[in-house]
Amino acid sequence: MDINQRAIDEGILFTDQYQLTMAQLYFRMGLHERRVQFDHFFRDYPDYGSHQAGFCVNAGMAWLLEWMARARFGDQEIQVLREMKTATGGQLFADDFLAWLRKAGDFSGISMQAIPEGRVVHPNEPLTVVQGPLAMAQILETSLLNHLNYQVLIATKAARIREIGRGGLMLEFGLRRAHDRGANAGARAALIGGADFSSNVGASARVGFPAKGTHAHSMVQLFIALGQTELDAFRAFAELYPDDCLLLVDTIDSLESGVPNAIVVFEELRRKGHKPVGIRLDSGDLAYLSIQAAKMLDQAGFPEASIVLSNNLDELVIWQIITQITEEAPRYGVEADKLISRLVYGVGTRLITSWGEPALGGVYKLVAVSEGEVWIPAIKISESVAKTPNPGNKRVWRLYDRRGKATADLLCLEGEDPRQMAPLTLHHPTEHTKYRLLKQDEVTDIEPLLEEVMVEGRQVGDAPGIDAIRQRRSEDIGRLDTGVRRIMNPHIYHVSLSQRLWDLKQELIRKAMQSLPNNFREK
Amino acid sequence: MDINQRAIDEGILFTDQYQLTMAQLYFRMGLHERRVQFDHFFRDYPDYGSHQAGFCVNAGMAWLLEWMARARFGDQEIQVLREMKTATGGQLFADDFLAWLRKAGDFSGISMQAIPEGRVVHPNEPLTVVQGPLAMAQILETSLLNHLNYQVLIATKAARIREIGRGGLMLEFGLRRAHDRGANAGARAALIGGADFSSNVGASARVGFPAKGTHAHSMVQLFIALGQTELDAFRAFAELYPDDCLLLVDTIDSLESGVPNAIVVFEELRRKGHKPVGIRLDSGDLAYLSIQAAKMLDQAGFPEASIVLSNNLDELVIWQIITQITEEAPRYGVEADKLISRLVYGVGTRLITSWGEPALGGVYKLVAVSEGEVWIPAIKISESVAKTPNPGNKRVWRLYDRRGKATADLLCLEGEDPRQMAPLTLHHPTEHTKYRLLKQDEVTDIEPLLEEVMVEGRQVGDAPGIDAIRQRRSEDIGRLDTGVRRIMNPHIYHVSLSQRLWDLKQELIRKAMQSLPNNFREK
Repeated sequence: MDINQRAIDEGILFTDQYQLTMAQLYFRMGLHERRVQFDHFFRDYPDYGSHQAGFCVNAGMAWLLEWMARARFGDQEIQVLREMKTATGGQLFADDFLAWLRKAGDFSGISMQAIPEGRVVHPNEPLTVVQGPLAMAQILETSLLNHLNYQVLIATKAARIREIGRGGLMLEFGLRRAHDRGANAGARAALIGGADFSSNVGASARVGFPAKGTHAHSMVQLFIALGQTELDAFRAFAELYPDDCLLLVDTIDSLESGVPNAIVVFEELRRKGHKPVGIRLDSGDLAYLSIQAAKMLDQAGFPEASIVLSNNLDELVIWQIITQITEEAPRYGVEADKLISRLVYGVGTRLITSWGEPALGGVYKLVAVSEGEVWIPAIKISESVAKTPNPGNKRVWRLYDRRGKATADLLCLEGEDPRQMAPLTLHHPTEHTKYRLLKQDEVTDIEPLLEEVMVEGRQVGDAPGIDAIRQRRSEDIGRLDTGVRRIMNPHIYHVSLSQRLWDLKQELIRKAMQSLPNNFREK
Repeated sequence: MDINQRAIDEGILFTDQYQLTMAQLYFRMGLHERRVQFDHFFRDYPDYGSHQAGFCVNAGMAWLLEWMARARFGDQEIQVLREMKTATGGQLFADDFLAWLRKAGDFSGISMQAIPEGRVVHPNEPLTVVQGPLAMAQILETSLLNHLNYQVLIATKAARIREIGRGGLMLEFGLRRAHDRGANAGARAALIGGADFSSNVGASARVGFPAKGTHAHSMVQLFIALGQTELDAFRAFAELYPDDCLLLVDTIDSLESGVPNAIVVFEELRRKGHKPVGIRLDSGDLAYLSIQAAKMLDQAGFPEASIVLSNNLDELVIWQIITQITEEAPRYGVEADKLISRLVYGVGTRLITSWGEPALGGVYKLVAVSEGEVWIPAIKISESVAKTPNPGNKRVWRLYDRRGKATADLLCLEGEDPRQMAPLTLHHPTEHTKYRLLKQDEVTDIEPLLEEVMVEGRQVGDAPGIDAIRQRRSEDIGRLDTGVRRIMNPHIYHVSLSQRLWDLKQELIRKAMQSLPNNFREK
């Protein structure tokens, strides 16, 4: 097979086989161009074990759109499918289906609405609404979930780490431990969620950011292997990078060798009119070492030199470091808050893999099917009530209370406008008897969250840059209640249904139950 | 900047920024073409929390080699670097360095030895030995670790799942929950480690395997939304795929609806001369449901129909299912072993993310530097004794006992041949007083593990296909002691040092300690 093996797994075949077998079935039945709606949402916040998220940060759409714009069934993809066999050796995909795929197998029929990247999002609300012809909307599922699940996961983790680091500078370092090429999407999502910079050169260039990095232990080791010293290595580095001099001080011994040598070099730089950037600690008791290093740097007259910490950091480790510094720094005559404000966090493995919960369970569910001009809501009732997706074509609204804090997200049917409802009824998504009533004057703003991103295969507007997305993230998190932002046992944010959506859902469940076999047992 | 943004993050800039700042330093000092040796190894088996690996499966080299063959500093990469600024706004990378990178910035000077893919590997032994010019060998670090860490991690997880599933057919389903494009490397590694097939169409095509998949819940839901039934959906599927008919039976209710409807369709297929493949269960108590489904299928005369299980499977969940079946099946008149032998495992999220331990901490350490024709061993002594890398140019040998089982891996210096040693001294890697002595007649085979894979940038030999790699994996695991294969608390496999390597390491540590500041405190 004369195909470009490198590209075959990144185009439209970046999907599951069953999407193709189903697509052929729909083609055979003449249903392949029937318009349908799928909702993309997740059911639970990431649960990292001893700590849990109370909100997520949306991310990934721009790269999904980029993929969709290029992905199509070209000759090499058709060739792969043509060679697939049935169990009895026949051709699995028939020529007429393949001819249709070759001609119409792209995403030009797809329209999408989405909650913008960078916005705070919650379970069971559609982050993405896909409408389009059945076969291609179905084939899209796998890649859409792949692109969005991971970036939401990492943007969320990054937001948590930034939160616990009190907004201190944060660098993404995880390329070597990431899941192959996923490193690039992870770097982007980290930048969206809370990292200021990434060490990943290519991914940074792709999103228009400068990459950050200085030197590794191997540089010091090399000098030593050549008969020179750590001080020689630091001097050489400072000479080449006098204004970007950040020195890794733990190759030999941080306090006995690294920091003193760094201070010697910093003093030399100062005499030449340069301002040293700081030091990096990569092993040992980071809280203790940073207190001692701060003291030494202060005494040498470098109170502004940064102290970069790295080595398996995550939200819990950073929390521990800050807590320990707060308790112990005064004992050594170091002002804790001042030290904390000069800390920089280099976060690798545990950010890029979302340590503790390395996957987000986003799903893509059929919620409506068109009949002529009418959308028929679809429902799936077999699983638990909580897992029954909300049917039909919906809108997501965010309600802000008198303090300007987000108080609930409300799912309505299309055409409903909660700004016109008095009172506002916020129905619990699954429990009959639970609802909240809000007067309009208890609410200071009601905002629609879904925006059009694609109409019939054409992207709507320009993709915003990472800076604009970060701005959204920062504003949205600022409008969350502190209880929701808490790193452990966060308050549950309400995602409610409008009365009409609630009624529709109940009616559909009743109808579906009636049509089931008599001996159907509700689970 | 007129660059192909899509490609910029997959080429040679798929690296960390500090590799480039260090490379410029070496260039400035005239050290950039000094030949050095880096060893790639990992320090610990994956620890998934309640269970731990006792061996790993090597994987990833073929895709690393593919990347290395293409990666180079072309015009667009140079352009990215040229635009990088120092803190004071100057050009970070000087023109002469960039000119050298443009001319010499590829991997044509690199030679590598590696333990072949598919082989069982252990901590602290070099899986890959890299020799080449300092600057490019340093730049290679990040991408090498990225490519190899993840595939070893997933091949290992897959091997564990296969092991616990008693070799039952295993399908990789994780694309939608994988870390973006990492899904493809994950699918390949899963196929190496133990999965028989993957649902990932593109990745399967790239490695020359057929992808597997049938249909999703959404197909049944669509029929219901259109006023038809689950039975209609099954019939339509069976008509199109009469010899590949595997039906997902839990959209409504597995035992009350799905399995009975599947049996109706299977009977229809049988009358037409086709052999149905089986059913898939994707929710609920999979052990209980598979017992009941097996009973129903048996009674209907389909004792050979497969029962595919999916829904967050991993080694523990499969273990639980098999245990429960073994206990409960006889109560329902179902033969447990026969049922277990017809099970197929569809494993998604928890395989592709290596649930519990989503990263392998592989490292890349400088172990030798050339001086003219001589290799000077390098050592890094700052960390704990266990973390001090083994210095110098080494060979890895595997020793088999009288039963033909692997009994230890032995690291020797180049030029040493353990087949000539009498007795064989196997030194504990860190403890002075611990060693094993083996007579040659206690050992049935001594085999070198490292093979040449690249000489001066040229790949040696053809990359073996996945089938050959799987064969190696299967043979190697078969030669492990059962204690090492255990899923929890496995026996510790010995990775030992030869007497000469032990002596060299001690001598280098002593020398390095002497050259340190007087007040150096050993950690």
